[in-house]
Amino acid sequence: MIPENDKLPMLSGRLEALGDGIFSVAMTVLVIELKLPVVEGNSLRGLLHGLYETRQELFCYFISFIVLGIMWFGHRMVFEYISRTNRYFIFLGVLFYMVVCLVPFSTRFLAVNTFDWYAILMYGLNLSCCNLTLYAQWQYGIHRPTLHSRIIPTAVKKEAKILFLVSPVMYSIALAVSFFIPLLSIGIFFITPILYLLPNKLDRYLP
Amino acid sequence: MIPENDKLPMLSGRLEALGDGIFSVAMTVLVIELKLPVVEGNSLRGLLHGLYETRQELFCYFISFIVLGIMWFGHRMVFEYISRTNRYFIFLGVLFYMVVCLVPFSTRFLAVNTFDWYAILMYGLNLSCCNLTLYAQWQYGIHRPTLHSRIIPTAVKKEAKILFLVSPVMYSIALAVSFFIPLLSIGIFFITPILYLLPNKLDRYLP
Amino acid sequence: MIPENDKLPMLSGRLEALGDGIFSVAMTVLVIELKLPVVEGNSLRGLLHGLYETRQELFCYFISFIVLGIMWFGHRMVFEYISRTNRYFIFLGVLFYMVVCLVPFSTRFLAVNTFDWYAILMYGLNLSCCNLTLYAQWQYGIHRPTLHSRIIPTAVKKEAKILFLVSPVMYSIALAVSFFIPLLSIGIFFITPILYLLPNKLDRYLP
Amino acid sequence: MIPENDKLPMLSGRLEALGDGIFSVAMTVLVIELKLPVVEGNSLRGLLHGLYETRQELFCYFISFIVLGIMWFGHRMVFEYISRTNRYFIFLGVLFYMVVCLVPFSTRFLAVNTFDWYAILMYGLNLSCCNLTLYAQWQYGIHRPTLHSRIIPTAVKKEAKILFLVSPVMYSIALAVSFFIPLLSIGIFFITPILYLLPNKLDRYLP
Repeated sequence: MIPENDKLPMLSGRLEALGDGIFSVAMTVLVIELKLPVVEGNSLRGLLHGLYETRQELFCYFISFIVLGIMWFGHRMVFEYISRTNRYFIFLGVLFYMVVCLVPFSTRFLAVNTFDWYAILMYGLNLSCCNLTLYAQWQYGIHRPTLHSRIIPTAVKKEAKILFLVSPVMYSIALAVSFFIPLLSIGIFFITPILYLLPNKLDRYLP
Repeated sequence: MIPENDKLPMLSGRLEALGDGIFSVAMTVLVIELKLPVVEGNSLRGLLHGLYETRQELFCYFISFIVLGIMWFGHRMVFEYISRTNRYFIFLGVLFYMVVCLVPFSTRFLAVNTFDWYAILMYGLNLSCCNLTLYAQWQYGIHRPTLHSRIIPTAVKKEAKILFLVSPVMYSIALAVSFFIPLLSIGIFFITPILYLLPNKLDRYLP
Repeated sequence: MIPENDKLPMLSGRLEALGDGIFSVAMTVLVIELKLPVVEGNSLRGLLHGLYETRQELFCYFISFIVLGIMWFGHRMVFEYISRTNRYFIFLGVLFYMVVCLVPFSTRFLAVNTFDWYAILMYGLNLSCCNLTLYAQWQYGIHRPTLHSRIIPTAVKKEAKILFLVSPVMYSIALAVSFFIPLLSIGIFFITPILYLLPNKLDRYLP
Repeated sequence: MIPENDKLPMLSGRLEALGDGIFSVAMTVLVIELKLPVVEGNSLRGLLHGLYETRQELFCYFISFIVLGIMWFGHRMVFEYISRTNRYFIFLGVLFYMVVCLVPFSTRFLAVNTFDWYAILMYGLNLSCCNLTLYAQWQYGIHRPTLHSRIIPTAVKKEAKILFLVSPVMYSIALAVSFFIPLLSIGIFFITPILYLLPNKLDRYLP
């Protein structure tokens, strides 16, 4: 054993800062890839037509931005309970960031092939991987008391589990549906983030 | 009710860090999109001509950078009073960041179609959305005392309201004018940030 | 000599923040450069073929992301012991960041010329430079007691040296091998990060 | 007058965070714009030739990265003395960041037209603007005692002035020389950062 004094604090702040950086770049990169609408004729109809032509891109941008925002929120909540890290926790974090960084990529893929099952598949898989790696991080964290900054109430653990797993389930449905009614899949991608905007049981713990 | 001990601090630092990241990327992305001036003939005239050819891009870059800088300042001031967050506050924040991320996009659109009303419309709408979502965040924050770090003087609330709403009003005028005299609209985009550089009543609260 | 009072704290936080920003951008930039897979025919075979065609890019993305993640971890560990900086330490840090920023560049080079010795050479050299500059920073730091926040146990110094130098050695082997069996070199690039995921002696110091 | 209690702390941390973000993006963007070397024939000669063809780009990358690193260091040092901000200080900061963001742009311009006086002019002007806006920020800061965190020794003010103004002077010489011997100008761009790497009088204040 090593002397207690040599133990490192390993505060989670740096990992959070890396995450904030990655989310902010990923969110901004979504826009870099937006094509400018082409407005033909100096008329309102021309503008609306130009926007209509880029509707898939704009729609995918909005969805992905909101999804990343919600994921950032989940990520932020994890660190409300966990204030220290170790090597395994950080590696799970890097995995999470790796799939988060792929979101602009699969968003672009979806924007180009919006109603094709394979684009829906890739997009849904990507988002599910984000949720599952974040969930893995959370699970590892809550079972490792040396990483905690505060006691995690059982009700929180239960509710968190549901919130982490709602979207992979929804996305799996979207994938299954995509072979038959791609438009419905897109609808599910649209509805899922809204579920997270509704009040939930964890709100009681917040100011 | 849950025990007081289980309440989370939810300090605003992470949301601020995400915002700083997003602003810094959005500001830098403005430049990535600048085209290099083409200098024909190894003469001063060639250089000036090359710069003149890219004058719209350069002008839009400067305006947007200053506008983003001022918006960052407004955003920063909000957090001088608000030190804790909750889910709704964060979602308003994500909305704000979403429209901020669109600024490089609508700047590029304006750079290409500088004197067309639809580019002026999109640009003005984008900037107004930024101000309005930031204002919504501020309004939510000041009506939720659990998020405050300090008492907000009435004079501050009043002045902040004016400052938040000056630019949407100015931009609306710019939009209305754009159908008749586009050059005047561009002038308004140029003047509006300058208004924020003038001394104002909030300066008394700063060091 | 100057009065003790005039000495500056020079906390390392800013250098760490710069590093977190650089790593997060470098990691995200890896993805910006990924080409979308082209899916011909609306079939699973078409998707798999499209992914297969971009396999080199995707593979290089994953490897580089994990390598950057591990490097970030090493960088983060350095600052667990070092909490203050001076000009020389910061310049070594800037050098480290400079070669880190080149990783997306050499990754792109490797993705295009995966089995060519010169791409393997450039990639291996780049990663080795990252490790060696980080090691230089560490060595400078541990020999300058005014920069320390805590005593560095001898066992840590010994183990850190091994960990810092494992990958330059592995990459040198990869380079030597690349003239004969390029596939083996790629295998070494794949295996090296895995070595860092195995438990090691420093884990005892972490929570 | 307003009650002392209503005065805001306005700590400089947020402005520093914005700066760290901007520097890290600007530094990484330098690389995004690097073209891959083309290696013809599977030979060492082919590689060297490919690198030789991109020598101007690589050279400009290294110079600009080091210059940005040194500028970041200067910026960081300012905040060692200044710990609070006000509106004017922040606006000077935004101006500084605006010209910093242009560095990747003028670097690209220099990489394409390395030995043309107008590229040297633009590059030198850009770097000088960075130094001068940073100097303006410093001057404003040291004359506003409410922003200080510690007394600024006279020797520091004197030495800082020299360090801030060395490079605009050097770059002015580079500009003047560029009409006659462009290669010498490039040499000056190369030497100037080295001057900042030499020991100086401020080092005594650091750990």
